[in-house]
Amino acid sequence: MNDHLTPDYGRAERIGIEEAIFCGGKTIEQVGFLLDEAARLGHALLLTRLSPETLNGLSAAHRGDIDYEPLSRTGFFGEVAAPTKPARVAIVSAGTSDAGVALEVERTLGYAGHATAGFHDVGVAGLWRLMERIQTIKSFAVVVVVAGMDAALVGVVGGLVPGVVIAVPTSVGYGAARGGETALAAALSSCAPGVAVVNIDNGYGAGCAALRILNHIPDDARAPKER
Amino acid sequence: MNDHLTPDYGRAERIGIEEAIFCGGKTIEQVGFLLDEAARLGHALLLTRLSPETLNGLSAAHRGDIDYEPLSRTGFFGEVAAPTKPARVAIVSAGTSDAGVALEVERTLGYAGHATAGFHDVGVAGLWRLMERIQTIKSFAVVVVVAGMDAALVGVVGGLVPGVVIAVPTSVGYGAARGGETALAAALSSCAPGVAVVNIDNGYGAGCAALRILNHIPDDARAPKER
Amino acid sequence: MNDHLTPDYGRAERIGIEEAIFCGGKTIEQVGFLLDEAARLGHALLLTRLSPETLNGLSAAHRGDIDYEPLSRTGFFGEVAAPTKPARVAIVSAGTSDAGVALEVERTLGYAGHATAGFHDVGVAGLWRLMERIQTIKSFAVVVVVAGMDAALVGVVGGLVPGVVIAVPTSVGYGAARGGETALAAALSSCAPGVAVVNIDNGYGAGCAALRILNHIPDDARAPKER
Amino acid sequence: MNDHLTPDYGRAERIGIEEAIFCGGKTIEQVGFLLDEAARLGHALLLTRLSPETLNGLSAAHRGDIDYEPLSRTGFFGEVAAPTKPARVAIVSAGTSDAGVALEVERTLGYAGHATAGFHDVGVAGLWRLMERIQTIKSFAVVVVVAGMDAALVGVVGGLVPGVVIAVPTSVGYGAARGGETALAAALSSCAPGVAVVNIDNGYGAGCAALRILNHIPDDARAPKER
Amino acid sequence: MNDHLTPDYGRAERIGIEEAIFCGGKTIEQVGFLLDEAARLGHALLLTRLSPETLNGLSAAHRGDIDYEPLSRTGFFGEVAAPTKPARVAIVSAGTSDAGVALEVERTLGYAGHATAGFHDVGVAGLWRLMERIQTIKSFAVVVVVAGMDAALVGVVGGLVPGVVIAVPTSVGYGAARGGETALAAALSSCAPGVAVVNIDNGYGAGCAALRILNHIPDDARAPKER
Amino acid sequence: MNDHLTPDYGRAERIGIEEAIFCGGKTIEQVGFLLDEAARLGHALLLTRLSPETLNGLSAAHRGDIDYEPLSRTGFFGEVAAPTKPARVAIVSAGTSDAGVALEVERTLGYAGHATAGFHDVGVAGLWRLMERIQTIKSFAVVVVVAGMDAALVGVVGGLVPGVVIAVPTSVGYGAARGGETALAAALSSCAPGVAVVNIDNGYGAGCAALRILNHIPDDARAPKER
Amino acid sequence: MNDHLTPDYGRAERIGIEEAIFCGGKTIEQVGFLLDEAARLGHALLLTRLSPETLNGLSAAHRGDIDYEPLSRTGFFGEVAAPTKPARVAIVSAGTSDAGVALEVERTLGYAGHATAGFHDVGVAGLWRLMERIQTIKSFAVVVVVAGMDAALVGVVGGLVPGVVIAVPTSVGYGAARGGETALAAALSSCAPGVAVVNIDNGYGAGCAALRILNHIPDDARAPKER
Amino acid sequence: MNDHLTPDYGRAERIGIEEAIFCGGKTIEQVGFLLDEAARLGHALLLTRLSPETLNGLSAAHRGDIDYEPLSRTGFFGEVAAPTKPARVAIVSAGTSDAGVALEVERTLGYAGHATAGFHDVGVAGLWRLMERIQTIKSFAVVVVVAGMDAALVGVVGGLVPGVVIAVPTSVGYGAARGGETALAAALSSCAPGVAVVNIDNGYGAGCAALRILNHIPDDARAPKER
Repeated sequence: MNDHLTPDYGRAERIGIEEAIFCGGKTIEQVGFLLDEAARLGHALLLTRLSPETLNGLSAAHRGDIDYEPLSRTGFFGEVAAPTKPARVAIVSAGTSDAGVALEVERTLGYAGHATAGFHDVGVAGLWRLMERIQTIKSFAVVVVVAGMDAALVGVVGGLVPGVVIAVPTSVGYGAARGGETALAAALSSCAPGVAVVNIDNGYGAGCAALRILNHIPDDARAPKER
Repeated sequence: MNDHLTPDYGRAERIGIEEAIFCGGKTIEQVGFLLDEAARLGHALLLTRLSPETLNGLSAAHRGDIDYEPLSRTGFFGEVAAPTKPARVAIVSAGTSDAGVALEVERTLGYAGHATAGFHDVGVAGLWRLMERIQTIKSFAVVVVVAGMDAALVGVVGGLVPGVVIAVPTSVGYGAARGGETALAAALSSCAPGVAVVNIDNGYGAGCAALRILNHIPDDARAPKER
Repeated sequence: MNDHLTPDYGRAERIGIEEAIFCGGKTIEQVGFLLDEAARLGHALLLTRLSPETLNGLSAAHRGDIDYEPLSRTGFFGEVAAPTKPARVAIVSAGTSDAGVALEVERTLGYAGHATAGFHDVGVAGLWRLMERIQTIKSFAVVVVVAGMDAALVGVVGGLVPGVVIAVPTSVGYGAARGGETALAAALSSCAPGVAVVNIDNGYGAGCAALRILNHIPDDARAPKER
Repeated sequence: MNDHLTPDYGRAERIGIEEAIFCGGKTIEQVGFLLDEAARLGHALLLTRLSPETLNGLSAAHRGDIDYEPLSRTGFFGEVAAPTKPARVAIVSAGTSDAGVALEVERTLGYAGHATAGFHDVGVAGLWRLMERIQTIKSFAVVVVVAGMDAALVGVVGGLVPGVVIAVPTSVGYGAARGGETALAAALSSCAPGVAVVNIDNGYGAGCAALRILNHIPDDARAPKER
Repeated sequence: MNDHLTPDYGRAERIGIEEAIFCGGKTIEQVGFLLDEAARLGHALLLTRLSPETLNGLSAAHRGDIDYEPLSRTGFFGEVAAPTKPARVAIVSAGTSDAGVALEVERTLGYAGHATAGFHDVGVAGLWRLMERIQTIKSFAVVVVVAGMDAALVGVVGGLVPGVVIAVPTSVGYGAARGGETALAAALSSCAPGVAVVNIDNGYGAGCAALRILNHIPDDARAPKER
Repeated sequence: MNDHLTPDYGRAERIGIEEAIFCGGKTIEQVGFLLDEAARLGHALLLTRLSPETLNGLSAAHRGDIDYEPLSRTGFFGEVAAPTKPARVAIVSAGTSDAGVALEVERTLGYAGHATAGFHDVGVAGLWRLMERIQTIKSFAVVVVVAGMDAALVGVVGGLVPGVVIAVPTSVGYGAARGGETALAAALSSCAPGVAVVNIDNGYGAGCAALRILNHIPDDARAPKER
Repeated sequence: MNDHLTPDYGRAERIGIEEAIFCGGKTIEQVGFLLDEAARLGHALLLTRLSPETLNGLSAAHRGDIDYEPLSRTGFFGEVAAPTKPARVAIVSAGTSDAGVALEVERTLGYAGHATAGFHDVGVAGLWRLMERIQTIKSFAVVVVVAGMDAALVGVVGGLVPGVVIAVPTSVGYGAARGGETALAAALSSCAPGVAVVNIDNGYGAGCAALRILNHIPDDARAPKER
Repeated sequence: MNDHLTPDYGRAERIGIEEAIFCGGKTIEQVGFLLDEAARLGHALLLTRLSPETLNGLSAAHRGDIDYEPLSRTGFFGEVAAPTKPARVAIVSAGTSDAGVALEVERTLGYAGHATAGFHDVGVAGLWRLMERIQTIKSFAVVVVVAGMDAALVGVVGGLVPGVVIAVPTSVGYGAARGGETALAAALSSCAPGVAVVNIDNGYGAGCAALRILNHIPDDARAPKER
């Protein structure tokens, strides 16, 4: 059934974002086939939502070519250079359980050659944790905010920083958190002006949105002065 | 059809909260009948959700006996003494459009003889507005937080103050704010520990919850030192 | 990735509630790291949503330091003194399946040194079970009501007791109970005035809300006369 | 367009319930046409959801033939005899705002010749109001419970009476009451066994369900001893 | 924690329905404790939602005292006599996957001594299957309709039979069937007058509703003439 | 702002369906501008969701060129020939309140030159009304079923006719009918195989779906033999 | 309990679609019983939602008679001839993860003797993939579009092709994709006129809808000229 | 009650976006008070969701100072200079009914001194309309996509342009469009990578998100070469 698989390798040229493989809905065979193709064509690939089960089901050769990060469930297939450009993106996350999504943002940008700066476990319930770091965060051109539950961090950061704010609601929480729906709706309803939102747990999407911006701003835009 | 109306005048003795009349779902005739009864028995009454239309439909005599506040749509029927006890409750609200609900809290407590202190238009999108007042707010035994949209103010205040925190989500906002459902779910999902929540726009309910607490704490509990 | 973990040990001083660890969304490694830190600093910790799987994955040393209660899935890490203050909180629950949540309330308060009194399996379908105990329940300053399905117990208790009423809807039930959403909405819609509500299954949150109140009332406030 | 109208006059013979006209979604012309037809055939009709606007838009002749009750918005068209059978149905309602729906039940049964006994404004927030009447209510073969908001009355009555219990959730309430959805879900989730439920505000449907039962039980089944 | 368990053995006397044990949310220990108590008191018990896992976890002695039916997951504990009264209830179900729920209705009534008549796999997509049996079905005093997906069978049967109609929506279906929510809403929205509805998959509830009716009608009410 | 208006007059050639104007979200000025353009180009137009208010707001000249049908709120602008092709589409509707939507189907097809045959007020609550006509309905190549509430008619017709079945759920009903959402979900969940569904109240869409089919079948396909 | 199983073998004659067995909600025993019956009567059967677990649980004899396709989880039981009629149906799918549903459409039509033409992995995010094939797709009489997430492919194809368009939303996606609900709602809301929709993941239903059309059009209707 | 109003005039300095007044939830008196304050301080203001009713209720002096645009319901209060910077933002909208929201984006950016380029009525149902303009659209640094119903335009544009893509779902549509919820969910679920989304109908928010980006990119970034 591999005639169902048509990678869009021309995407980078068209919109500035490399093809990536979302492994979530794919069988081990489908992922293996795509890696074979990429290897044959000499393409590197970013793999997202790559579960340990799928990873372990791949051939030893493929596994050996994958740089895997388990918390974000991402893999780099093939040669991926370390970031060389300075960090213009801050990743700000609310709680420990948001770490996987925050790392997906970091890895998506890292795969594209961009360093990032992380500010984690700074949820508003202990506001001092954010306030201690806010001056640094304000110096970044792009600020990705990762938060679940009530996503209150989005509104607070959005009202304090001049950078482009991209919110990633996460599925962290239970009951009225409704698997991330509350964080999503809260981020969209924030009265901090000009906050843009991506899908629940969509660290990859936030990374790509950041990429679209980085492709249009100078390399030294609002670089952090300190940390 | 007035055999459908059975006021619970024994409530104050039973649970410490006076009977009030929710006018929202009642006809002008039903409200008029209840006022007649209360006048006959010498009872004062708190009237909530009293629309200008219903108010104007009442007899001139009844209208003359009502101290009406239009933004909260509340009325005091009969003799209601001014508050004599010191303010132990802070009412903190996020935006201009939350004023009606915040006033309903104030009026509910005022009707029961309790002064309150208001801190309004301090939503987190302009965090400095809250931070300038937070030391004072921290001195109150009970803090009622009134907020719509993403209700981020609830989590921020809940993480900063030691008092009892009662959140009133409001129906302010549009689209993903879903008529207050997002503020409600966000308030319930806040990771600030020990925040208690009442129904959307339910300023009366928040006032009553505060009353239950005030009935159990000393008159001078955590009185504000300044304002 | 443990730079993602920043416990808020200053919380007790700030708002009167000790830091606790929600283990639900954390890996065994993350929980272990936090216990190491706490042990190093000499802190005790309340652990919530601690599954048997996570517990068993911890080191034997850590397991030995944890007083675990399986129905509530809570653990006390380190030295926790038995409650010394008299019970000012009643915990009233509707059915057998609500026991785990009711115990989470009890354990949260017990960890903070407060005794509680339990009244269980008193759902309104057999109203005599509640009525036999209601006089005692009325004597408590704080009444936590734990109920799933239609949460009718909330409205009935709220109309009968003068104490502060905190409702914890539970995810007990099926079909139209919608995993606790119906109990939550019903508790919020109760016409008993002044009922405050926390998230679905959030026994910890109800305990913390009770703590905020206990911190403001005298130790002998409305102590139970009998049981 | 009156070829769209095909009354089911054979229904009474088929299932024991007379045809009725739901006026809610119909134009004045359509209602008028149906009355003309009924008059021509010598049929009486029960009209439900008949708004004052539609009523006033009908011809004076038609208006003269309608016995209209405004709170329930029901009309009897043509000759309708007064009930002659003893009351075997109790109608129990929670609050003043439920009166219209409760009256729709009463009128539906009255149109079919059955007396009913009403017990109104007995919501559980003031439980004494129900308890004073419960012995009488227990003597009826069928008990229709009309309640909005959290519909807690349904579970309480369902656990106390041996009669057939039919719950009518109403759209009374705001916010989390969600236009009757919460009352509906709560009634369905009640743990009182054997409670049957009809649609929100569907007093007519509850009356018809009662009719199906009355058609199968003796005229003197569980008649009320007192009131 | 068995102080959380308080069976309501007085229920039969109060409302005419014996106590039953819903095993769904209970641990094996809790179920075992309740069986011990029942055995000690000489009570028989109806067990519902009894999974094979829980059954197998019970002691051999308890297992030996249970008459288990796996499709409905019901058990009779102790001596339960075979039905002696004639069948006054028809159980009509739409598809094969509804069989478990239909059997739960049958077992609930059988436990109480009532025979039933089953008409299965008669969904409206093959209307002839219903039409061949409808004359017989019309002869029953009570008709329980069990259907998932669009629950169209409810409206069709409700329009054809004069008996009391109780609908049990089931969770059969996928996608827009939404786990039974669509069947539930469709049953409530049926325009066949006087259909009463219980919770999704609630065969036990439908059986109890039927019991409340059977307790009020003669033993020979509308007995089936044929089958 | 009329640069916002770009009619797609090439549509008929591209997909076989003429451009139509949905007037629902447009101002009177916008509709007037589009009519001017159409008149200038000599195009006829089908106008849908044309409210009386918008119609009356148009110029007298425009009004004179519109053949308006009020129940469906449709207008033919310009010269529209009467249908000449035989009826290959049956329109089957459940209740009186569905008439407007059923007429929108009829008008959409009539505008395109196709006759239709209507079978109205045949909802399943009175199944005889459908059964009397079903042999005729079975003879049509396309059967459009228009139904609100539980949309049970869709499943019944879908199981009986060999023609292409297109379901139009309508917003008829209240409470659990949820403005047509229940009818929509029920139609999608029907177990009659091969039923295709369009949006709530979307008579125009059903007409267009029928058009796509009529464009591919012979003019005499399954013509009705009788009526 | 096999009296619950009544296959509708007369369906093909009645509506032109053979009986099929949905194995999703059935036990292995029930499926086995139905295969025994079909074998005894000499019927072939289409089996849908046949999981590997159920397949492996069947007897070796039955397994040997089943032509199983794992991605679509369909089986042909008994003799099924290869398609002989030319392909009049195009199956267009958006992404790799939609392949299983697309194959269910193909298998449903193949079982009935119809060839199909597949156009896969042509989602609109890489529009060139669709545009390269659109001229061929336009030549088919029926176009089935299979898409998850935002289902944007439905609107794009619907605006480009003159054939009958049947949309199958799939449960592909996460977060705001809500298990296919967003794709379903988007397909229903598409402004391309005349798109008909089936349930989420319902490849079988789309195949049946196509069958109803194929039964009414000539064998050579709009055959593809190229591919 | 004007102590509830605290404009955040320091916002521009803090985050680069001027204070604006959302008039939607405010009384005429509140808006008038804010205009008085702004006039006194010499501030200009952007007014959003300013209904004609509120506008007409203002004093003649205030009305004279407002440059009002009715379709977007926006007003410029005080001196606002015409844009001087070249257009770096494209506004792409799907249908006529989206014009008001598209204009709100344009006005928000215009108020801040930025020109924009509009591409309207280019929904995907007539894909040629978009394709004719796509080369020009691709040259902009920021592309705001405004679309209701299925919001398919978002995914198509997102896959074609390299600029930053901000989607504004609108409440255009009916039935399954659910007041913009479907467009919102579809935009969030788009598989075009890196699309960022704002709240339903939130043209102001999209404008502000664009502003945050424009503040970080060169004035000549990807200027359009033609139009």
